[in-house]
Amino acid sequence: MNGFVWLVGAGPGDPELLTRRAARVLGEADLVLYDALVDPRALDLAPQARRFPVGKRAGRPSIRQETINRLLVRAARRGQRVVRLKCGDPFVLGRGGEEALALVAAGVAFEVVPGVTSAVAAAALAGIPVTHRGLAAGFVVVSGHAEAAYGPVLDSLAPHSLTVVVLMGLASRAAVAARLLARGWSPLTPAAVVLGAATDAARTWTGTLGRLVSASLPEGDAPGTIVVGAVVSLAATLGRSAESGDATRAVGESR
Amino acid sequence: MNGFVWLVGAGPGDPELLTRRAARVLGEADLVLYDALVDPRALDLAPQARRFPVGKRAGRPSIRQETINRLLVRAARRGQRVVRLKCGDPFVLGRGGEEALALVAAGVAFEVVPGVTSAVAAAALAGIPVTHRGLAAGFVVVSGHAEAAYGPVLDSLAPHSLTVVVLMGLASRAAVAARLLARGWSPLTPAAVVLGAATDAARTWTGTLGRLVSASLPEGDAPGTIVVGAVVSLAATLGRSAESGDATRAVGESR
Repeated sequence: MNGFVWLVGAGPGDPELLTRRAARVLGEADLVLYDALVDPRALDLAPQARRFPVGKRAGRPSIRQETINRLLVRAARRGQRVVRLKCGDPFVLGRGGEEALALVAAGVAFEVVPGVTSAVAAAALAGIPVTHRGLAAGFVVVSGHAEAAYGPVLDSLAPHSLTVVVLMGLASRAAVAARLLARGWSPLTPAAVVLGAATDAARTWTGTLGRLVSASLPEGDAPGTIVVGAVVSLAATLGRSAESGDATRAVGESR
Repeated sequence: MNGFVWLVGAGPGDPELLTRRAARVLGEADLVLYDALVDPRALDLAPQARRFPVGKRAGRPSIRQETINRLLVRAARRGQRVVRLKCGDPFVLGRGGEEALALVAAGVAFEVVPGVTSAVAAAALAGIPVTHRGLAAGFVVVSGHAEAAYGPVLDSLAPHSLTVVVLMGLASRAAVAARLLARGWSPLTPAAVVLGAATDAARTWTGTLGRLVSASLPEGDAPGTIVVGAVVSLAATLGRSAESGDATRAVGESR
């Protein structure tokens, strides 16, 4: 009997932002291997499943990727129906491609269930559209995890040409800002950091790229999404008026 | 009595990829104003609502944005609970920010419900992760609708620095390819066009940037997503092995 693996995006936080398909396959799962930051209420959608955290939490030791790949393959070979539940979208900076390749190599059938990426939703829920006519015709997404990876991408961008989104960017905010400033971005470029997007503890800092270098923000495990570009100026209007804005209280510097 | 507007992302096509929140607010709606390309089955989630297409279809006259904004405001002022159902995510290249600003200006309460963006999902369902360790540390998203908008963004990117995704890119594929080649991207860079992502009619063309200029592809109304970068090479492995790959038959040139 062959098992099956679904690589599923859990969205940005709020379990209401899981897709209908994600909810459906969780309901059919025997086993759920989930990122540590996934909301526990999402796991309630898998009442019959055993559930294990395997993922990564900023600044803490975590299970190696190869181990996760092995767990997926082994469970599927035992005939289990496995959901690998990943924050955001499984193919956006989450090593989902590596998990998929491991499943192909092992001959395990699988399906990718795309999710709502925090790259777009963290900004949106803070009142920031990543694109907006006249302000930004496009956006770029990188991870703040490793400067060796995001540095060359940021260096490649002509200043003020588009919106920059840095996922998992809280700890690297000074390095990100310094890199963009060195590339020629104006220190007055609007910038935001969205903390704990789509959770009850959501907070948004807004200011400028120049002030991002020294912004006083809580450290810790909360995921932080950096947004840089003219679209951030819309947060002053959209972030407070939208109902979702109620949960997105400003912290630190004023808008 | 005050109405309410939800700006809701319908995801890339398959109504199973709507979020749980999207399904919930559709069930409460009195009125749904939907993009023409939204799957009719998504509208079945709003059985009590009147439903009108307002959106845009490539190459055909469409209702002006100002008219859509006015319809939203007027319905809300009459006390209606209105869902504005938009393809993909409401804040990714869909003028959702303009709709939100119009609602703020009119004093209408609203909420943004993020959706699964086709920028990530069209690629994923064709077996292409937009990021992948060693191949791409980030991705950029633009619309192929107006070269005056996407041109400067593409020109700003250093060649081979990240994955390029062009939404609504079918008609502009030759111009996009020419622009990247002129910027110094290699003609051998892997490239794909995903047609009708997340529908039963999904098709993927894969080739190279050099061949994208003259690729023989169906014209017409189907939305087409261009993906350029080394990650496209993974489609040969992931696009066929994934169950979702069954619906993603290759067309035209071989992988």
